Amino acid sequence: MFGALVWAQTCMAAQDALPSWNDGASRQQIESFVRKVTTPGSPDYVEPAKRIAVFDNDGTLWTEQPVYAEVFFALDQVKAQSPQHPEWKTTEPFKSALAGDMKGLAATGEKGALELVAATHAGMTTDEFARRVNQWVSTARHPKTHRVFTEMVYQPMLELLHYLRDNGFKIYIVSGGGQDFMRAWAEAVYGIPPEQVIGSEGELTYEWRDGQPVLLKQPKVALVDDHAGKPVGIERFIGRKPIFAFGNSDGDQQMLEWTMSGDGARFAGLVHHTDADREYAYDRQSKVGTLDKALDEAGAKGWTVVDMKKEWKVIYPAERQ
Amino acid sequence: MFGALVWAQTCMAAQDALPSWNDGASRQQIESFVRKVTTPGSPDYVEPAKRIAVFDNDGTLWTEQPVYAEVFFALDQVKAQSPQHPEWKTTEPFKSALAGDMKGLAATGEKGALELVAATHAGMTTDEFARRVNQWVSTARHPKTHRVFTEMVYQPMLELLHYLRDNGFKIYIVSGGGQDFMRAWAEAVYGIPPEQVIGSEGELTYEWRDGQPVLLKQPKVALVDDHAGKPVGIERFIGRKPIFAFGNSDGDQQMLEWTMSGDGARFAGLVHHTDADREYAYDRQSKVGTLDKALDEAGAKGWTVVDMKKEWKVIYPAERQ
Repeated sequence: MFGALVWAQTCMAAQDALPSWNDGASRQQIESFVRKVTTPGSPDYVEPAKRIAVFDNDGTLWTEQPVYAEVFFALDQVKAQSPQHPEWKTTEPFKSALAGDMKGLAATGEKGALELVAATHAGMTTDEFARRVNQWVSTARHPKTHRVFTEMVYQPMLELLHYLRDNGFKIYIVSGGGQDFMRAWAEAVYGIPPEQVIGSEGELTYEWRDGQPVLLKQPKVALVDDHAGKPVGIERFIGRKPIFAFGNSDGDQQMLEWTMSGDGARFAGLVHHTDADREYAYDRQSKVGTLDKALDEAGAKGWTVVDMKKEWKVIYPAERQ
Repeated sequence: MFGALVWAQTCMAAQDALPSWNDGASRQQIESFVRKVTTPGSPDYVEPAKRIAVFDNDGTLWTEQPVYAEVFFALDQVKAQSPQHPEWKTTEPFKSALAGDMKGLAATGEKGALELVAATHAGMTTDEFARRVNQWVSTARHPKTHRVFTEMVYQPMLELLHYLRDNGFKIYIVSGGGQDFMRAWAEAVYGIPPEQVIGSEGELTYEWRDGQPVLLKQPKVALVDDHAGKPVGIERFIGRKPIFAFGNSDGDQQMLEWTMSGDGARFAGLVHHTDADREYAYDRQSKVGTLDKALDEAGAKGWTVVDMKKEWKVIYPAERQ
């Protein structure tokens, strides 16, 4: 009797690829979609090479409040570099950055974030930048949770990545965040290799230094991989239309539209931040991660909207039983 | 006795992954490199995820003379569109293109080729462009061989792609040619999926047409994936330094330098076009596929230089026994 119970529990555990998801509508829609496209003979069957899934990062795979993690990284870089930039004391977003004024910083919106990123992500080699990111990401802590940022990824989404990979999907990150910033840690944290991380990027120049070729990061933007830039990034990097897309904000709307515009079965999902206790609650009025038009479109078109508070048993990996 | 002979021959056939390569220096260098990086316990062992190989396309995987195949494609597009462009009759490279003057066209060099490409590769959706390329590539014929262009890939290089894949390499094309042009047929011809084809590319805009989102090809260049643009393209798309690179011209020099600049065992190869009878013979003086500085550097640094005439038993797949 006891043996049978253990066996039954083991089977349930083996079958449950999404243990941190309650058995709600979102989970059912995800599982139903994956079953349809992976069952040989199903009218919706998709061959493995075409099982492309795309995920936004900030607010979809990890916490993006009170501002993007990459802004915290940039803040630390600004502080370190500020003695060489006296003009930053009176110019936004640097003024708020130096003062640690998160409200003022949030008020500069995504435009302010991009400016900060450009000023702190250029003028060095790609290797040097990756070193700085890796050093930061293993030591800096979030102001609210005091966790390192890579511990603020969403456990239910980690399970979803795993579940899709086990079902033959090739997973890409398609994020407005910096491509080089994410690539420095995405493989260790998400199991997603650098060549499957698409993000905003600056121009690079090829130069020789000390007898070795280097790639130097320039302050000029090459791609803003957000809003309409996401389908552009997808086409540029992948050259295939995804069949599965997950986002959380208006910046993901075009990526979801583009994904849904192809033939056959397709899936579009949005993470709705509804949990002020365990994470954050925000949507239409938020400066960071605004979810307004895409929420309307999701309602109109029947996209999956994950109610974080109701549908996720835990938020972060540390909360697992 | 007879049985043993058949068995021995079968084993040899099974072992010979590069049957179209004579047992010369190039073949030995390739096989020696692959053995080193794939033998567990070898000091040069490289884990599969980092076995990135990059190949130029024009002149490395298929014939690029008398001008790039993509220029022939552009010529046919120019002819079709010329009634709407009377100014083309007096402006190079369009004047030579319309006159079928290949010498005049070759004299406009890579710059002329790029202009022609920009004028004939924009103003349509990505889907429409792919349709045009697919239609062309299955019907148009090379002026000298009268073969369709996809039959003018190099048999020894097809074997090399296969050999590397069998040894766990992930193969990318990194070409000055148009990314969308190559992606339309590279998977069928080389077994290389679109997401592993990096090339020169134009800007795209995301728009709605007839209730569907489309990506519209713009005449503005986003990346010239040639010379110093190749390491830039590699970093942008792959985010890892390759360990194996093959090219055939000065346009590949920086890609080979970049590949060789990392730690551990690395391979750089150049196809040297020495066979005027079976293909073409050209190097330092050629307007298309100039091989001059890279040939000097290959000599100085000991890169592998394939003497096509001496080292390749056959050039094209149709010549196989």
